[in-house]
Amino acid sequence: MSRIITLLTDFGHRDPFVGIMKGVILGITPDARIVDLCHEVHPQDISEASYILARSVQYFPTGSVHVAVVDPGVGGPRRSLLVSTRNRLFVAPDNGLVGLAVSGEEYRAYHLDRPLYWLKPTSRTFHGRDVFAPVAAHLARGVPPEELGTPIADFVRPAVEKPCRETASMRGKIQHIDRFGNLISNIPGNVLPELPGERFSAAICGQRISELKSCYAQAAPGELMMLIESFGYVEIACAGGRAQDVLNAQKGEEITLEWNP
Amino acid sequence: MSRIITLLTDFGHRDPFVGIMKGVILGITPDARIVDLCHEVHPQDISEASYILARSVQYFPTGSVHVAVVDPGVGGPRRSLLVSTRNRLFVAPDNGLVGLAVSGEEYRAYHLDRPLYWLKPTSRTFHGRDVFAPVAAHLARGVPPEELGTPIADFVRPAVEKPCRETASMRGKIQHIDRFGNLISNIPGNVLPELPGERFSAAICGQRISELKSCYAQAAPGELMMLIESFGYVEIACAGGRAQDVLNAQKGEEITLEWNP
Amino acid sequence: MSRIITLLTDFGHRDPFVGIMKGVILGITPDARIVDLCHEVHPQDISEASYILARSVQYFPTGSVHVAVVDPGVGGPRRSLLVSTRNRLFVAPDNGLVGLAVSGEEYRAYHLDRPLYWLKPTSRTFHGRDVFAPVAAHLARGVPPEELGTPIADFVRPAVEKPCRETASMRGKIQHIDRFGNLISNIPGNVLPELPGERFSAAICGQRISELKSCYAQAAPGELMMLIESFGYVEIACAGGRAQDVLNAQKGEEITLEWNP
Repeated sequence: MSRIITLLTDFGHRDPFVGIMKGVILGITPDARIVDLCHEVHPQDISEASYILARSVQYFPTGSVHVAVVDPGVGGPRRSLLVSTRNRLFVAPDNGLVGLAVSGEEYRAYHLDRPLYWLKPTSRTFHGRDVFAPVAAHLARGVPPEELGTPIADFVRPAVEKPCRETASMRGKIQHIDRFGNLISNIPGNVLPELPGERFSAAICGQRISELKSCYAQAAPGELMMLIESFGYVEIACAGGRAQDVLNAQKGEEITLEWNP
Repeated sequence: MSRIITLLTDFGHRDPFVGIMKGVILGITPDARIVDLCHEVHPQDISEASYILARSVQYFPTGSVHVAVVDPGVGGPRRSLLVSTRNRLFVAPDNGLVGLAVSGEEYRAYHLDRPLYWLKPTSRTFHGRDVFAPVAAHLARGVPPEELGTPIADFVRPAVEKPCRETASMRGKIQHIDRFGNLISNIPGNVLPELPGERFSAAICGQRISELKSCYAQAAPGELMMLIESFGYVEIACAGGRAQDVLNAQKGEEITLEWNP
Repeated sequence: MSRIITLLTDFGHRDPFVGIMKGVILGITPDARIVDLCHEVHPQDISEASYILARSVQYFPTGSVHVAVVDPGVGGPRRSLLVSTRNRLFVAPDNGLVGLAVSGEEYRAYHLDRPLYWLKPTSRTFHGRDVFAPVAAHLARGVPPEELGTPIADFVRPAVEKPCRETASMRGKIQHIDRFGNLISNIPGNVLPELPGERFSAAICGQRISELKSCYAQAAPGELMMLIESFGYVEIACAGGRAQDVLNAQKGEEITLEWNP
C-alpha cells in the first residue's frame, strides 16, 4: 500500500487548485491515500500554515508525506524543499513552512532540483501542481528523497517566538484562534504548577481569568475560562460562546500567566 | 475491504481538526474509506447535525460507520456513545445527535468506556480525535461493538417536533434552510392530498403559496413555489432566487398547509 | 482498479449533498476513487462551473469520469447527458456545462434515459444523487456508455466568448477571479509577442500595466503586474495583495492588450 499524502494550502475551496493537485498525484501514484489537512489558511500566511502543520503531523502514520503550499515566492529564487525526518517526509517551498514541524528532530534536507520528476510544462506560478504534487506522488510510490533533489545543509527555519519566563509570571502570545473563537497561546500547559497549593491566573485584554478548568463543560455559560487544550497549550475559552469576541482579542494578543503567592 | 466511515462535525475548514481525525483513523485502519458528510454545522448546533445525519445515512452502504461530533459537553459527564442498528453503526457523544437517525429502528446502544481503544494521552477537549475517530476505525476493521463499550438500555433521544394536524390544516416548522435558500419544513410530503380534486396552499411569513410544483423549472423566475423536496418533505423555494431572502424567513419559521374546500 | 470520479457542483459545504453523492457512488462501486474538484461554484452559475471543469480535467488520468452538477433545470425538460471523449467521460445536465471542456475534441454524446441505472425512487429535484452519481459509479466500474443512454447527435454547447483581435490590440474579458484576487482573462498568453524588441501593455479599469512578469515575486509589494498564469492565460495580479480590490474589478471586466510601436 502506498503512503499517505496530506495537503495543506492557502488555496481555499472556490478554485479547483486542490482537486487538480490530487489529479496529478493520482496520475503518478493511483493508490495514494490523500488527506486534506486544511486549505483555508489565510492567503500567503506562512506562519499560520506552519503552525497548523506542526500541530497535525504527529497524528499521521509513520511514512506519511506532508505537502504544504503557501507560496508567495513561487517561481522566484526561493528553493523547493524536501525534508525527511525519522518518521515523515515534508514537501514545501523553502520559506519557513516546515521549520516548526521538524523542530527538535533530526532531519535531512534536499533542494528539489530534478525537473525529471515535475509536471511538464512547469509553470512559474503554480508549483503546487507542477512540482510539489508530483514529487509527493513519487515519494509515496517509493522513490527515495536523494533521487528527487540534492542534499542541502539547512533550510529556512524561522525563530520560534517562545513565551518569556519572569520571576512570578510567564508572558506569551495568542498564536492561533480556532473556529470556536478559542484563543490558543504559545505557553505550554506543563509550565502550570501542578502543586495544589499554588495559585495562578491569566491576564489578557485587561481581564483576569483565575481558574483552570479541565473541560469546557466545567464553566457556566458565558464564563471565560483557562484550560490546557488538546495539543497541550494554555487556551482561553468561553463556555457556549466565543472568547475571541468576548475579549475582542486578535491573533498575537499578549497573555500573561501570573503566580500568586 | 474495510467499511466506510463518514464524518459529520462542527469543526469547519479553517482548522486541521478533521484532517487529524482522518490521520488517526488511517493509523488504525489503513484501508478505511472516509467520507465527509458535512463540517460546517453551526458551532455546537446539535439539532442541525442531528437533522443532517438523519437525512444522509440511508444513502450509505450497509455496514457504514457514521461518526458525528458536535460536542459542547466534551470531557464532562456526558457519555460517549455507540449505537448499532441492523444496517449501520453510529459513534457520537450521547447528547441527542443520534436520535433522529435511528428513529423507528431497532438498535443496541453502548457506553464507550474502554480506554484501551482510545488515543493516548486522551484529552478532555477533543474526543473527536481521541475517542470517536479511533473507535470508528476499530469498528471499520471489524472489532465488535461489545468490545468497545458496555451495553446500555437507552441514550439521549430528544423529542422530535412533529407537525400538528388540525381539521383542515397542518402546522409545521422550517427545520432546515439549505445553501440555495430553500426552506425545508418538517411536514412530510405524503400528507398532501393526492386526489386531483383537492386543493391546498401553504402560508408562511404572511404569504400564501398555492401551487405545488414538481420541480424548480416549473415556476417562473422569482416565483415562490411549494414542492416535495428530494428527501420527501414540503419545501418552499424561489425559482432562480432564494426563498429565505424573499420571505425573510428564519430556521424555525412556522408554516401552515391549508386544505381549501 | 476502478476509475477516478471527480465531482464539481454548486452544493457548497453546509449541506450533506456532496457526501450523499459519495455514499451512492460507493454503494455501487466500492473502490471508486472520488476527488472533489470544487463545490463552491456560485449557486446556479453554469458558466463558472464550465470554466472550472475545462481548466481541470486535463490534469486527471485517462479514463477519469467527471461529474458536474449545476442544475437549475433539474426535473424539467433538460436532458441528462453523458459525453465521452478519447480520454475521459463527462456526466452532467445538458445545460452547457460540458461544452468548454470538450472543445476541439472528438466526442460521443448520450442522453441518459435508462432509469435502470438510477437511484429509486428518483426525485425531480436532486439528480446529482439520483441520476448523475449512480451513472458515474456504473461508468467507473466499467459499464459502457451505450448501456447507460441513447446516442444523440449533439448537446448544448454555448458559444465561447473569444478575445477580439484588432490591428495593434486585443480586447478580452476577465473570465475568472481566483481566491487571491488574481484577474484571469480569456486572452491566451501565446498571443503576446515573443520578440524582445516588441512592447505591449494591458489596459484595465482605467489603469495601464506595462510590464510582463514571469512570477509574482518579480514585482514590488503592492505593484500591479501582468503575467501568463499557470493555465496559459494573461492574468493581472498584485504582488502581496489582491488585484481585484486594487482595481475594483469584476468578473466580465474588459481588458485590452495594446502593442506599442
